[in-house]
Amino acid sequence: VRLLEKPPPHLYNAHVMNTSEESLSHTADTLAIVGVGLLGGSIAAAAKKRQSVRKVIGVGRQPARLEGARARGWLDAVTDDLAAAAREADLLVFCTPVQQIVAGVCQAARACRPGTLITDVGSVKGPICGELERGLPSGVEFIGSHPLAGSEKQGFEFADAELFRGRMCVLTPTAGTSRGGLDRTARFWRSLEAHIVEMSPQDHDHALAETSHFPHLAAAALAATLCAEHRPFAATGFRDTTRIASGDPELWTQILLQNRAEVLASLDKYAATLRDFRRALADGEAETLKRLLEQGKQNRDALA
Amino acid sequence: VRLLEKPPPHLYNAHVMNTSEESLSHTADTLAIVGVGLLGGSIAAAAKKRQSVRKVIGVGRQPARLEGARARGWLDAVTDDLAAAAREADLLVFCTPVQQIVAGVCQAARACRPGTLITDVGSVKGPICGELERGLPSGVEFIGSHPLAGSEKQGFEFADAELFRGRMCVLTPTAGTSRGGLDRTARFWRSLEAHIVEMSPQDHDHALAETSHFPHLAAAALAATLCAEHRPFAATGFRDTTRIASGDPELWTQILLQNRAEVLASLDKYAATLRDFRRALADGEAETLKRLLEQGKQNRDALA
Repeated sequence: VRLLEKPPPHLYNAHVMNTSEESLSHTADTLAIVGVGLLGGSIAAAAKKRQSVRKVIGVGRQPARLEGARARGWLDAVTDDLAAAAREADLLVFCTPVQQIVAGVCQAARACRPGTLITDVGSVKGPICGELERGLPSGVEFIGSHPLAGSEKQGFEFADAELFRGRMCVLTPTAGTSRGGLDRTARFWRSLEAHIVEMSPQDHDHALAETSHFPHLAAAALAATLCAEHRPFAATGFRDTTRIASGDPELWTQILLQNRAEVLASLDKYAATLRDFRRALADGEAETLKRLLEQGKQNRDALA
Repeated sequence: VRLLEKPPPHLYNAHVMNTSEESLSHTADTLAIVGVGLLGGSIAAAAKKRQSVRKVIGVGRQPARLEGARARGWLDAVTDDLAAAAREADLLVFCTPVQQIVAGVCQAARACRPGTLITDVGSVKGPICGELERGLPSGVEFIGSHPLAGSEKQGFEFADAELFRGRMCVLTPTAGTSRGGLDRTARFWRSLEAHIVEMSPQDHDHALAETSHFPHLAAAALAATLCAEHRPFAATGFRDTTRIASGDPELWTQILLQNRAEVLASLDKYAATLRDFRRALADGEAETLKRLLEQGKQNRDALA
C-alpha cells in the first residue's frame, strides 16, 4: 500500500515520471468511455482539453442523449454499439454502475484488438478485479481504477474538465497485472492531473468503506430520521452533514452491497463509538464527552 | 409553534410588520453584546451596518482582545465591566457559552434600568428560559432567541454582517413574556434581516436536537472513527459530512449536556435507523436498502 498525497518521483516507477515524454505524447489514440454520466463526461472533457488522446468515443444505451456532450466538443463520436467501440479503441474506461462493469468488460474484451487496455472508475474494486483477473482474451488487460472525485449530481451536464485535477486516483493491480499496463493506466490518469496511488483491491475496499461507503450510509440514515416538520430548522450544519445522501439510491445500493463486509465492519465500529458518546452523555460525564468530541475534531482538522 | 420559512405579514403580529416604521427608527439606542465571538461580532457588524442601534458596547473578559472589532467600526466601546454596560444599555444580547448565560443575565439584570430587554443566542433554550422566567428585577425582561446561523469557526475575526440575512431566528417566549418585549426582540432580529419563528423553549430544544445537536454528535463520532492511515482517502463527501465536527468541543459538550434528554432521544432514533440499514445490508436485501436510501434522499432533497 502506498499512501501518498503527491508521490515524489523516486517513489513511483521512474519511466512513468518522464513528464516531458508524457506531455508530448498521447496516452492513447482512441479512448472509448462506456457510460457517459458525470464521471464519464468529466473524463471526456478533461482528456479533450488536455489532448490526452486523439479521439473520444462515447458509448451509451441512448446515443441521442449524448449529442449534448458531442456538441460541447467532449466526444468525437457516440454509439450504442459497445463491440464496435471496443474494436476501434486502444483504451476503454468503464463508467457504468459497479454491478454492470464485469459483464460490460467481458463483452467489450471479446471485440478488442490485442494490446487494448481496459479500466474503470468503480467505487468498489475487490469483486471487479477478482472476477476480471482471468478469463479475458489474450492481449487484453483490465486494471482497476478509482478516481476519488465525483459529486452527488448525475449526468454529463455536470461534467467538469477539472474534476480530477489534484485528486487521488487509486489503481488496484493484482498478481497478473503487467507493469506496462499499469504504467499506461497511471499515465492516462496523470494526464488528467490526478495523482496516483497503488494498492490492492482489498486494501482499497477497506479504506473506502471507512471514508466513503459507510459515510454515505451514515448521512442517508441521518437524513432519513429528519421529520418533515423539523425541516425548516435544518441549517447549514445539517445540510452539509447530509449532502451526500442526495446521491442515487440505486447506485449506492449496489456499492454498499458490493462492499458489504467492509461496510458492515465500518458500521459496527461507528455504532460502538456512538455508544461511547451515548454513555458519556447519559451519565453526564462532561470530561469524557469532551474528549470524544476532541478526538473527532482532531481527526477532522487533520484533513483541512 | 409557527414553522414558517418566511412568515407572511398577516401571520405575524401586525404592528411589528410596519416595515416603514421599523426602517426609520432604531430598534434600540444602546446595545450591549456580551461575548464578542463569531456570533457576537456578527451581530455588532450587522447592527452597525444597518444602523439598527445608535451605540454598540462589546463586553468581554479581555477588552484589549476586542480592539480589533472596535477598529473595524463594529463596536463603539469595549469593557470588561458587565454591570457598567448593563446600566448604559437598553438591549443586551448574551453570546456567551450556553452554560454561562443564566448567571450572566442575572448579574447584568441587577444593574439594568427598568425597561431594559435582555436576550441571547444560546442553542438550547429550555434550561435558560426556565431559570430566567422569574427572579429578574422588576422591569427587566429576558426573552430567549436562537438565530440559526453560525459556523464551526471561532472569533470575531470571522464575523459577517450578513450572517443573519434570510436566516431563521427562533424566539422562545414563556407564559410570563410580555407582548411588547417579544415585539422588540423580533424587531431587533428582523433589523438584521433574520426572519422570526416563535415557539416554546421545549419545542425548540426538540427540533434543534434533531437538526443540530445530535447531527453534531453524529459527525464528531464519524470523524472520530477515521484512522490516520485512511486520511488521504477522505474526499469531499467525508469532508462535508464531518465539517461540523471541527466545532469547539467545550462549547458542544455544554450544548449536548444542556439538551441531554432530547439529544439522547434523537440518538436512539438514529441508532434504530442504522440498525435497519445494517439488517438490510447484512441480509443482502437490495430493495429494502434502496428504500432506506431513498427515504434519506427524499428528506435531503426536500431541503435544497
